Amino acid sequence: MKHTAALHLERCGEPIYVQLYMELKKRIESGELSDSQKLPPIRKMAKSLNVNNVTVINAYKLLERNGYAYSRAGSGVYVMARRAGNIQVDQKYDMYLKSQMADRADAIDFAKSSPDPKLFPVSDFKAILNEVLDRDLGYAFEYTEVKGYKPLRECILDMLCRNGIECRIEDIQIISGAQQGIDIVAKAMVDYNDIIITERPTYTGAIAVFKSRGADIIDIPITQEGIDCFKLESVLKEQSPKFIYVMSSFQNPTGFSYSEETKERLIYLAGKYDFYIIEDDYLSDLYYFEKPKLLKQYDKNDRVILIKSFSKIFMPGMRIGFLIVPPKLQSRVAAAKQLSDISTSGLIQRAFDMYIRNNLLDRHIKSIRQKYYERYNTAIQYIDGSIKKFDYYKPGGGVHLWIKLPEGLSSNMLYSECLMKNVIISPGSTFFINRPEHGYIRLSFASTGPMDIKKGLDIISDAIEKLSGE
Amino acid sequence: MKHTAALHLERCGEPIYVQLYMELKKRIESGELSDSQKLPPIRKMAKSLNVNNVTVINAYKLLERNGYAYSRAGSGVYVMARRAGNIQVDQKYDMYLKSQMADRADAIDFAKSSPDPKLFPVSDFKAILNEVLDRDLGYAFEYTEVKGYKPLRECILDMLCRNGIECRIEDIQIISGAQQGIDIVAKAMVDYNDIIITERPTYTGAIAVFKSRGADIIDIPITQEGIDCFKLESVLKEQSPKFIYVMSSFQNPTGFSYSEETKERLIYLAGKYDFYIIEDDYLSDLYYFEKPKLLKQYDKNDRVILIKSFSKIFMPGMRIGFLIVPPKLQSRVAAAKQLSDISTSGLIQRAFDMYIRNNLLDRHIKSIRQKYYERYNTAIQYIDGSIKKFDYYKPGGGVHLWIKLPEGLSSNMLYSECLMKNVIISPGSTFFINRPEHGYIRLSFASTGPMDIKKGLDIISDAIEKLSGE
Repeated sequence: MKHTAALHLERCGEPIYVQLYMELKKRIESGELSDSQKLPPIRKMAKSLNVNNVTVINAYKLLERNGYAYSRAGSGVYVMARRAGNIQVDQKYDMYLKSQMADRADAIDFAKSSPDPKLFPVSDFKAILNEVLDRDLGYAFEYTEVKGYKPLRECILDMLCRNGIECRIEDIQIISGAQQGIDIVAKAMVDYNDIIITERPTYTGAIAVFKSRGADIIDIPITQEGIDCFKLESVLKEQSPKFIYVMSSFQNPTGFSYSEETKERLIYLAGKYDFYIIEDDYLSDLYYFEKPKLLKQYDKNDRVILIKSFSKIFMPGMRIGFLIVPPKLQSRVAAAKQLSDISTSGLIQRAFDMYIRNNLLDRHIKSIRQKYYERYNTAIQYIDGSIKKFDYYKPGGGVHLWIKLPEGLSSNMLYSECLMKNVIISPGSTFFINRPEHGYIRLSFASTGPMDIKKGLDIISDAIEKLSGE
Repeated sequence: MKHTAALHLERCGEPIYVQLYMELKKRIESGELSDSQKLPPIRKMAKSLNVNNVTVINAYKLLERNGYAYSRAGSGVYVMARRAGNIQVDQKYDMYLKSQMADRADAIDFAKSSPDPKLFPVSDFKAILNEVLDRDLGYAFEYTEVKGYKPLRECILDMLCRNGIECRIEDIQIISGAQQGIDIVAKAMVDYNDIIITERPTYTGAIAVFKSRGADIIDIPITQEGIDCFKLESVLKEQSPKFIYVMSSFQNPTGFSYSEETKERLIYLAGKYDFYIIEDDYLSDLYYFEKPKLLKQYDKNDRVILIKSFSKIFMPGMRIGFLIVPPKLQSRVAAAKQLSDISTSGLIQRAFDMYIRNNLLDRHIKSIRQKYYERYNTAIQYIDGSIKKFDYYKPGGGVHLWIKLPEGLSSNMLYSECLMKNVIISPGSTFFINRPEHGYIRLSFASTGPMDIKKGLDIISDAIEKLSGE
């Protein structure tokens, strides 16, 4: 490759493999390195630059993780053309989403992680809406303050207090759902070329946001105790990420929860290496045994930005949630909120406020936890009693099971096979950056009743047998 | 300046002043050129680079417009440190927003451009909400399709058809308000360093979005006939913008509307120079004499992306609107919508659908148009009859008057003076990139009744006299 000779690595302060990555990325973006072009073999590249082989390996890996290259087994690493910052429309993922959205009222759906609409507290909420409209009239439909309707923020503060989370009214920012929370925090904090860290695997909707801001993502494996702090620290020694994005309770998709030790360690590292932690609390309320403590509860130095979602424990179509934002970031986060949608629907905010004040949210969460626990038990017992061969982790809460497939079986193939039998699963590849095959599937029992859970598990088990050629 | 000697301008395809701009911008971002550092005098810089003086002048202007530099009269141009892409929190603007949000129930508010809550159709809408909940139960609170609730999209298509706008169901994307529309289109189309064009002056909420994507903004003056196409074309000969952002009817803040000739010319230029037009239709429905034709109606080649807002003509707290998206951009726009908030509130979408189908929206717009026309007449007649000295343009619709101040009078000073008298106005500087003083104010009569309009106009007139020392 004629260009390697001219590579100049002179950015100071960055490790050499990052410099090499940045340089190659620039050339891919500019079109100097063209789509599908083969990158020089590792040894050759290392020799020509007078660097270690490992340096080149790490740079190539970073290119792959961020979608600038792909490797073919036994052949080498190839350029994948893209322009940074632009929205990537992943055809495969797009098809998967479409199949999720397709009208499959008769399918057994283990992909959907939002609650069964039959469990929604519609009549309670209808009464609340009418009460709000009678009380507030047209004012219910005005713009609200950027930070959110003040009575709602006060009532959330109170709820947090009761749950052992200390914060101030100024720290609370209302958002139109957790996805918007991720987007707003990224807008406020991420610049082009910034480095951010995520768990591996993780929530795809977060990865898409960070990529769209032109960030470079480094993903660190998650274990049953939480993110691998050893690997994390080895990265931190060489990188300065803006933040790390984590789900500390019943992580999506694995169901793993952070141990107390990991939480303490992560908070410690955030102080030592000066980065923020974004804690996406999408369903810590759905614990079946012990109530988990949030990372935010360990946070004494304003390192944690909490994103609280109600989509899984209340009703996703509400599109409401909140952030706890450290003082330093508040004006930037509010500005980002304003340019995203000015403010969250005033009607929804007022209704949610009254719903919480009337103690209906607490009551609903208790009832839904009981319902999900029944489904959880049905799934676990049926797998352990009748299916047996699934290799999986029993989470302490939540709605997901993360199941390891037999060696060599593709989750995408299994997905297609199950779809033909009218069962929808989430292929594990969906949860990895650039979606390589890892041999996992995620089953969600959020909107599937007990009978369908058993029937669906049988169909999946048969499909695995068929594809494994057993 | 030691760095100029080392400037290499070798980016091909770009005019030299853009190359110079890019190079200086890079150095400001990296910190190589530090905050408040003086840039070399124009002639010296031109000589050292062996380029024309005009080249340096244009590069410096571009730096100023994009907030990388500022000039001091008679002294020169100075570096303003910033990092691209990051949210800029403008302290002055922030204070202005806070004063808008402040609890001033007793103030005469000419800054608010959203409707008077007393004009909202609350009881109609309450009946609709109840009907939707009785019909759809929990399904009203589910996630909807990314593109939006299909019956609503069908009913919008029908409405567009009746108004002479041809499009297909696939072209319609539901959004959570027009601000989100701008944000989503920017996410789908704008990469770091892209050039985009706006009118001068224009809507600040759009500028903030484009800046947050790391775009370079070039603003072209708007005249009473629409954007200055002559100046526009001279820019287009040297630049390749991704799109141009315009409001063709009753522009914000000027109230100017595009002539037929300007509309045709702009569509022609979009084809010739290959760019998109984002048409922000925030209140074309509020015409008082002749119904304006949208740019979209002149668009035969899918050059126009229409953003339709209902905040000014319905209720802003609804947070709903739609886009008409050319086929080529649809999957990218849908992906951007998904990563912004997954989907717009299903309840609001269903209720809006039923509201339109029952012909209530048409009826409401007719009634609100009549109410605003009364306010418009009150303001115009009072200014022409009693105040006399205001230099302003009579728009054919909308809710804004754009008033030129006497030579040398600062709109920010007038703003503070009026605030002390409990009258809120919008200083014209708000609508220019980086907010220089231009000697204009915007008065909005959207949420001010006839009596207050007269009283407020007297107070403003007195304040102008006082500050002018007349």
